[in-house]
Amino acid sequence: MKSMPSRLTEIHVGSSPGQKSFAVKAANSPYDAVAVDFSHGDIDAFPPHPAAEAAFVAALNEGGQAAYTRYRGNPGVRQRLSERLAALTGAPVDPERELILTPGTQAGLFLSLASLVEQGDRVGIIEPDYFANRRIVRFLGAEPVPIRLNIFGGPSQPVLNVEELRASLRTAGAHVLCLSNPNNPTGAVLPPATVDKLAEMCVEDDVFVVMDQLYCRQIFAGTEFTHLRALPEMRMRCVTLAGPSKTESLSGYRVGTAIGPSWLIDRMEAVLSITSLRAPGYSQRVLDPWLAEDSGWLAKRVLAHQTIRDRILETLRKLEGSRVRKPEAGSYLFVQLPKLKVTTSEFIGELADKEAVVVTPGSEFGDGFDDFFRINFSQDAEAAIAAIERLVKLASLRRADGPDADPHAVGGAR
Amino acid sequence: MKSMPSRLTEIHVGSSPGQKSFAVKAANSPYDAVAVDFSHGDIDAFPPHPAAEAAFVAALNEGGQAAYTRYRGNPGVRQRLSERLAALTGAPVDPERELILTPGTQAGLFLSLASLVEQGDRVGIIEPDYFANRRIVRFLGAEPVPIRLNIFGGPSQPVLNVEELRASLRTAGAHVLCLSNPNNPTGAVLPPATVDKLAEMCVEDDVFVVMDQLYCRQIFAGTEFTHLRALPEMRMRCVTLAGPSKTESLSGYRVGTAIGPSWLIDRMEAVLSITSLRAPGYSQRVLDPWLAEDSGWLAKRVLAHQTIRDRILETLRKLEGSRVRKPEAGSYLFVQLPKLKVTTSEFIGELADKEAVVVTPGSEFGDGFDDFFRINFSQDAEAAIAAIERLVKLASLRRADGPDADPHAVGGAR
Repeated sequence: MKSMPSRLTEIHVGSSPGQKSFAVKAANSPYDAVAVDFSHGDIDAFPPHPAAEAAFVAALNEGGQAAYTRYRGNPGVRQRLSERLAALTGAPVDPERELILTPGTQAGLFLSLASLVEQGDRVGIIEPDYFANRRIVRFLGAEPVPIRLNIFGGPSQPVLNVEELRASLRTAGAHVLCLSNPNNPTGAVLPPATVDKLAEMCVEDDVFVVMDQLYCRQIFAGTEFTHLRALPEMRMRCVTLAGPSKTESLSGYRVGTAIGPSWLIDRMEAVLSITSLRAPGYSQRVLDPWLAEDSGWLAKRVLAHQTIRDRILETLRKLEGSRVRKPEAGSYLFVQLPKLKVTTSEFIGELADKEAVVVTPGSEFGDGFDDFFRINFSQDAEAAIAAIERLVKLASLRRADGPDADPHAVGGAR
Repeated sequence: MKSMPSRLTEIHVGSSPGQKSFAVKAANSPYDAVAVDFSHGDIDAFPPHPAAEAAFVAALNEGGQAAYTRYRGNPGVRQRLSERLAALTGAPVDPERELILTPGTQAGLFLSLASLVEQGDRVGIIEPDYFANRRIVRFLGAEPVPIRLNIFGGPSQPVLNVEELRASLRTAGAHVLCLSNPNNPTGAVLPPATVDKLAEMCVEDDVFVVMDQLYCRQIFAGTEFTHLRALPEMRMRCVTLAGPSKTESLSGYRVGTAIGPSWLIDRMEAVLSITSLRAPGYSQRVLDPWLAEDSGWLAKRVLAHQTIRDRILETLRKLEGSRVRKPEAGSYLFVQLPKLKVTTSEFIGELADKEAVVVTPGSEFGDGFDDFFRINFSQDAEAAIAAIERLVKLASLRRADGPDADPHAVGGAR
């Protein structure tokens, strides 16, 4: 065995979303519960728009022109998409220079950071945030500078304190910041005033932002979403990642987009050329119907998620001592458990083994979230509510101050 | 603009295969020639096996189970594929521990090297060989140790001199070697005796091999192909990359496979988790009909390529002073030009602009190949021969010792 390169030492995939759920799906739970894998969305409950398959098959029929594209992606797809992305984000997109199609938004993150961050740099990373951000920074030989989100913050105490962020970046000498908005895993959306302040900071302190907006189309009633790249001078100071993998359920095609200044897109294309050449050729075409769905399709999908969110929040309320932010967007809930007799890891293991409910441990999203778990509530509503009820019952039984009953009673009690 | 991270300084995509051909296809050539892009294969001339599309559509219909897989790939696909890969390579493949599905063989190369090579290491790289090998090594902060192939070597003077290779690796202190077999761009196949010696060297000198065997199913009559991983002790000392992108024309799906020791596959999965999560979920299923095509399909395809190879070689013979190895496998010809009045780059530019013929400059494949170009002859046979005739005429006109005619006469003379 060759010794492990140091860039890999902080990547552990065992607890990553989706990596532990497969045994559970195969196993029979002791009673008749429907297994729910909350580590990712259920695209059988929220299927892809049928136009995606049609676009893919059309590409297959087109043959070579669709299969082999420039590394940055099919010129026609980029041309057509640029107008819709400009409308979505509120600022122009040059299809030839400012847009690259990526093998999913995951690749967009990797390509962006690999193109911006020099070995030894320090990079601002929000906690909690998507698990890969820190790992990519470490992989590149750079050091994450953690900035804590105010998870339960609201109007009076913003979820992201830009003055604290600025101070942390200045102290560290960091000039790149990577974050998701809407936030993964909390579903928090940065309020307009916060995004304004963030933009000001970027200009004044020469900070470049990698902005993961994967959930920016799934905004719930009462919340306003501000696109950073639409603010003054920000088109040259940020890269915006968006794609159809979540709300639109197209993850299986592995495509996403990145919009940024031309010098960055050129570099990202260079990195893409050595990591996987291009986004899958035929899959690139499923971006043609994206952002162009029939009127009402998106609104209906967002509303359905809002309804599930509210029902799960109501169910979780029965778990005394737990805390959760009501998400303004996206499909995630980040739940803090009451104090348990067992470790969170033991609880999550028991939940999977005995209740056929898979959740992602909070420790995946940053330091200090050991008593949290994340669920993706893009699920069949009835199955999800039943699963959360089982979760609440098991957690109630395992409370540090609760009864010490046989866990099998949980299922029996349903 | 942020300063460019040093890992990117050697990646230039402008001359990479396929990146310059698009303007040519759009432009009208001055006469009625059929444009031929020799930078990659023409999958309209050699279409994918229809079973691929059927497998993909079946995966779409299966939904979530097909879209979201473990990072290393769908367990069922790996299970079924492992038996066929074992038969292909002549050694067992543990589907759970020794096999990972990658977003193309390009990703297999990146994931392998990122998992083996520490910053500052020296890595053996063959010249000429696939353009990305050197770039990936540099990206990882390591240094390529070039080993020259004997391009025109034959039985008496083997194409790869393992004693020279061993001496170079020892001097450099290199313990990782990356090469393609069949070789890209020359089509050379390492003879059995050379592969035997290579295996001995790996054991004696503790060398690990990244073996890109993308073309190992397209071996022409009279040549024997030896799989390194089937030799004693080599199953633990090499990673074998194979996939359906070339001979099988499935590049547009972006899937490949890597077979290696479990510790390496674990690391590759970790890197995959941060670069693009997984090979495209639905595309993974096109590996089901791969290596299981109806009898005769592969033989027919290989024979068709052998015929085109021979016709092009015959045409190229008219170009006095040129040299080319007769490839034993694959779809590439690596041609050395006679001395020209113009630079190779000018010649290649003129060839594209005026003759609608795109070739890849030899400089992409290592140092010292400035007077070479590569073609992928997986093309419509008649169009390819006509294009090579135009190439021969233009090169003859541009010879250092040739006439100084108007280049437009080339077309007119056809």
